[in-house]
Amino acid sequence: MRVLGIDPGLTRCGVGVVDVEPDRTARLVDVVVLRSPADLDTPRRLARIADGLEAILEEHRPQAVALERVFARSDVSTIMGTAQISGVAMLIAARRALPVALHTPSEVKAAITGYGRADKKQVGAMVARILGLEAVPKPADAADALALAICHAWRTGGAAGAAIQDAPAQAEASSLTPAQRAWLAAERSAAVSGAARRLKE
Amino acid sequence: MRVLGIDPGLTRCGVGVVDVEPDRTARLVDVVVLRSPADLDTPRRLARIADGLEAILEEHRPQAVALERVFARSDVSTIMGTAQISGVAMLIAARRALPVALHTPSEVKAAITGYGRADKKQVGAMVARILGLEAVPKPADAADALALAICHAWRTGGAAGAAIQDAPAQAEASSLTPAQRAWLAAERSAAVSGAARRLKE
Repeated sequence: MRVLGIDPGLTRCGVGVVDVEPDRTARLVDVVVLRSPADLDTPRRLARIADGLEAILEEHRPQAVALERVFARSDVSTIMGTAQISGVAMLIAARRALPVALHTPSEVKAAITGYGRADKKQVGAMVARILGLEAVPKPADAADALALAICHAWRTGGAAGAAIQDAPAQAEASSLTPAQRAWLAAERSAAVSGAARRLKE
Repeated sequence: MRVLGIDPGLTRCGVGVVDVEPDRTARLVDVVVLRSPADLDTPRRLARIADGLEAILEEHRPQAVALERVFARSDVSTIMGTAQISGVAMLIAARRALPVALHTPSEVKAAITGYGRADKKQVGAMVARILGLEAVPKPADAADALALAICHAWRTGGAAGAAIQDAPAQAEASSLTPAQRAWLAAERSAAVSGAARRLKE
């Protein structure tokens, strides 16, 4: 199942594409951070991001789009741009008949790290581990977009075309187990390599 | 100058088109309230509104688009849909190289009625008067969209192609005078017809 994840933003919009197998293994297809200059007016900034998004959809042809659910209680200074980009992303997906799923930040964190209040560093580290990357994708918008895409594939069981349409803002305990296992493995591995490093010093 | 005004909303999106002459006289070209059913998911609702908006732009070919500036401090339950529709409307305008201007509700009220805190009834009455309509356009979204379009033409002096790009949220005192005059005339006229009615009774 190929999923495109979007961490919406007017200044930086993270877009990540992953292929996820039924056994939950995931592979990085592409990741990019679309930007729009702050000195352009908002309509032109939206068009700039929309052009980039359409080019990526055209190139990678995902089966589903996963988008961060934006809350009105978020930071007031950025909420409008974020909501506008979300609207534009949803329109573009709807016009390509792609299913769109919304996931809250805590759903994504829970799915990826097994812990709904994980910090950005933990999410980035787990994304790199899940995708077998040597480094954590930077900036955080890139890692967040990939986390969204992986979260969506895992939550829907990797069924192509399946989508949690406007998924309720609850993490399903059952979906956490593989992530928790992966997270524990990652922690163990980090502890081991830390120990190995200390032994060398 | 032909202006298309949009009162953005996911359930009801008011769209009004007016022709405004350099002497500030205004004529109704079209007014419609686009709707999307609440049982569709948000991406499809956005696409529904977008399709309607594009059809109107195609039919009437306005020279500028005026959009209500949405504030994050507005009603939390509707703010996200409103912001998403705004984003979609701005994208559609930008892709047609149409200038987009944002006006706050109080700017519109001040321009139309001469009073920034006018209520919806006063705005509707003045819109009907300015456009020479026998009845106030209903629902309020329709009247608001027309008010936005007239406000924009008046504030830019009716210069084709001119746009207040992200206009600051202040009403210009100088732009109020003709509206104030019109409002006073309307009040006098209402008082006269009220007096005439009373005389007949």
